[in-house]
Amino acid sequence: MSVKNRKMHLAQFLVHGPTYHSVAMWRHPRTAAQGMAWAEPELYQHIARVCERGLFDMVFFADLNFISDTYGADISPAIRYAAQVPCHDPTPLLSWMGAVTDTVGLGATFSVNHHQPFYAARLWATLDHLTRGRAAWNVVTSFNRNEFANFGDTVLPPERRYDRAHEFMQVCIELWESWEADALVLDKEEGIFADPGKVRRIEHDGPFFKSRGPLNVVRSPQVGPAIIQAGVSAQGQSFAAKYADGIFAINPSMAAAKDYFDAIKSQVVDAGRRPEQCRILFGVQPILGKTRSEADARQAEHNALVPLEAGLTILSGHSGLDLSKIGLEETVETNETLGASRSARVFRGLENEPLPLREAAQRHGQSVGLPQVVGTPVDIADQLEEMFTRIGGDGFMLSPIYLPGAIEEFVDMVVPELQRRGLFRTAYEGKTQRDHLRQD
Amino acid sequence: MSVKNRKMHLAQFLVHGPTYHSVAMWRHPRTAAQGMAWAEPELYQHIARVCERGLFDMVFFADLNFISDTYGADISPAIRYAAQVPCHDPTPLLSWMGAVTDTVGLGATFSVNHHQPFYAARLWATLDHLTRGRAAWNVVTSFNRNEFANFGDTVLPPERRYDRAHEFMQVCIELWESWEADALVLDKEEGIFADPGKVRRIEHDGPFFKSRGPLNVVRSPQVGPAIIQAGVSAQGQSFAAKYADGIFAINPSMAAAKDYFDAIKSQVVDAGRRPEQCRILFGVQPILGKTRSEADARQAEHNALVPLEAGLTILSGHSGLDLSKIGLEETVETNETLGASRSARVFRGLENEPLPLREAAQRHGQSVGLPQVVGTPVDIADQLEEMFTRIGGDGFMLSPIYLPGAIEEFVDMVVPELQRRGLFRTAYEGKTQRDHLRQD
Repeated sequence: MSVKNRKMHLAQFLVHGPTYHSVAMWRHPRTAAQGMAWAEPELYQHIARVCERGLFDMVFFADLNFISDTYGADISPAIRYAAQVPCHDPTPLLSWMGAVTDTVGLGATFSVNHHQPFYAARLWATLDHLTRGRAAWNVVTSFNRNEFANFGDTVLPPERRYDRAHEFMQVCIELWESWEADALVLDKEEGIFADPGKVRRIEHDGPFFKSRGPLNVVRSPQVGPAIIQAGVSAQGQSFAAKYADGIFAINPSMAAAKDYFDAIKSQVVDAGRRPEQCRILFGVQPILGKTRSEADARQAEHNALVPLEAGLTILSGHSGLDLSKIGLEETVETNETLGASRSARVFRGLENEPLPLREAAQRHGQSVGLPQVVGTPVDIADQLEEMFTRIGGDGFMLSPIYLPGAIEEFVDMVVPELQRRGLFRTAYEGKTQRDHLRQD
Repeated sequence: MSVKNRKMHLAQFLVHGPTYHSVAMWRHPRTAAQGMAWAEPELYQHIARVCERGLFDMVFFADLNFISDTYGADISPAIRYAAQVPCHDPTPLLSWMGAVTDTVGLGATFSVNHHQPFYAARLWATLDHLTRGRAAWNVVTSFNRNEFANFGDTVLPPERRYDRAHEFMQVCIELWESWEADALVLDKEEGIFADPGKVRRIEHDGPFFKSRGPLNVVRSPQVGPAIIQAGVSAQGQSFAAKYADGIFAINPSMAAAKDYFDAIKSQVVDAGRRPEQCRILFGVQPILGKTRSEADARQAEHNALVPLEAGLTILSGHSGLDLSKIGLEETVETNETLGASRSARVFRGLENEPLPLREAAQRHGQSVGLPQVVGTPVDIADQLEEMFTRIGGDGFMLSPIYLPGAIEEFVDMVVPELQRRGLFRTAYEGKTQRDHLRQD
């Protein structure tokens, strides 16, 4: 398939809470007026219908199991500014949205921490049945100190976490395959429901998990859900290359994004899969206006709504560093006060230059490192086309600055422009989440 | 409130699978034609709407996490006859049904085994938000060897299981209360989302669980879901008396049911609650006909559809005894072959007489001990009224023999007769699950 004919894949990013990549979203004047609209299912039903109308691959929910106290050793700032707080469980929303849509994929993050594979395999196989093959599970193995404190567990070292995650995934796959495709007999006359010869125990006995099986859920349309990953670390990339049907990546620099893309695709091939079996979608934050000056004004309006302390709170949580300890004009990388673990990317600008803390925090509160793509529908299509062409990426994960308007405007104004250019599908060709991700 | 004015509470019992108390349901000629209809959400949406039209307190799903191999040390019979196999996860159905109803309660069993309280508290608080206070959680702590083998855990002794369950519940309640009712500020102008002084850490540190909290879900309409229990053992009864808003009980003998009812209500009072704060609903299996002879014929037709081996499989699973080891004409209680644990009730008839295995298994496959209530709408109302009056019970949990017709017929024919007699509500007075259970 020539570059000319390649089509983008689009996923809508959401969280079941008031803020996402933009910590200002809940207070944005164009976000639905009621303060608790983010907790009401009607909002997400509407969004699911809009994304289906827009022919998106999926609506996707990130998830967190904690409130961060990294900034100032206190949960207060996170609560005060809704800095990724609260975050309600997204999995019940998938059913709710499935009830009012037919085709769009429905995905969510579900951590393998603190769970047994039998539970996760059963939940996600059920979701795949109910959605008729539209379920997508973002498999994460997190390591947040605040999360582990809620569950009373101790944090495993990284290599053990990924060993555990690999085994978790293996047990799930064995359970999803424990009913053969033709196991059901459904002979009402003879009273034979299923053929016991086609339902297997798995007898898994590994270092982390034991499970006899079989699953008590029949084989689902996709044989378990589609798998999403966000592999950043070397272990995460190797996990993603082996299992993921899709990857969500955040990479503000196009050069770095291209390196990441090429590295993952080469690992996918090394794992014995075709490159198109693992789609890589890059996160962007679209800011749309009817004119360029309107879009610029909207960007300025949005960014001014990010309280600096909210940005510091999220950046502290993500970096694991208590940034209340240093001055706002200092750069983090060279600072001795904070100790050893100073991950670089979030503290640098697009040209890889170290930023003063004030600027890094402000940017992080705006978009958590997602490039803001600003302009008219034509401008935004231009920028997405350029990224799509230069990175070679498979498409984009779109993160909104207000709800539900930002999604409606993208679907109504940018999608037609992308279609006009031949860059985006004009119809779903298949029915399942994997069909959409595999569609050329 | 005089007996004359007491109103019944009605709950619809379901399982997310092909069979429930009746192992014949999937093959019943009046069950929806397609063999997989039980796995499709449309069936449950329809049922939820019918139950809401019938003003039921709730639609409720039981749940199991295993396939039993107790009968003959083999999972084959359970799979062949759909003997409580498969059983898909019911929690995703609650959202689906919530999306098409406004008032009816939505409940499911969710075992506290193999989970951490933070996860359960978060899931159920979210469901309570999404349903606007219509969620009900049946808290169970199971001890099935087959279940534990799927999760790789060892079975705790009964007293430890209930110690763990009590602590589990305590942590959940602390988490549900960790956001005060007025914690949300929602001041968009000032950018203040919530008041951190009204969101507490719980700092739970007990023998089974540690959790710092707070929950990252704001206080839900019912401050967590309504709690359902099925307390049978002494520990189960004490748990139910303390926490349950409703109890589902199976008791085929009216005298025994009255003793059970009185014992629980007295424990509820001892726990410092009013008797009406814990409603006790007794399971029945209605079999309806336009005439008495049609109803009798339907009972005979249904019962003949239960394969004896399916009944033996379920009875083996429930009793923990491998009943393939003894003859069909023997009685279980006096049998030496089976070893010590021979729980009596399921092996006895209505007059407490020991039954030959053939008869006990056949009855167990028909209704798992639920009384079959057979006749015209008037006959059934007569029988329910007599049970309601003699036991003093709060109402009934209805288990169908075919789907969805058995539910439609009850709602369309029996409910109006109960209303005509002043035995059942003619309108919902409240909006939440607890409102319905508390309604006089």
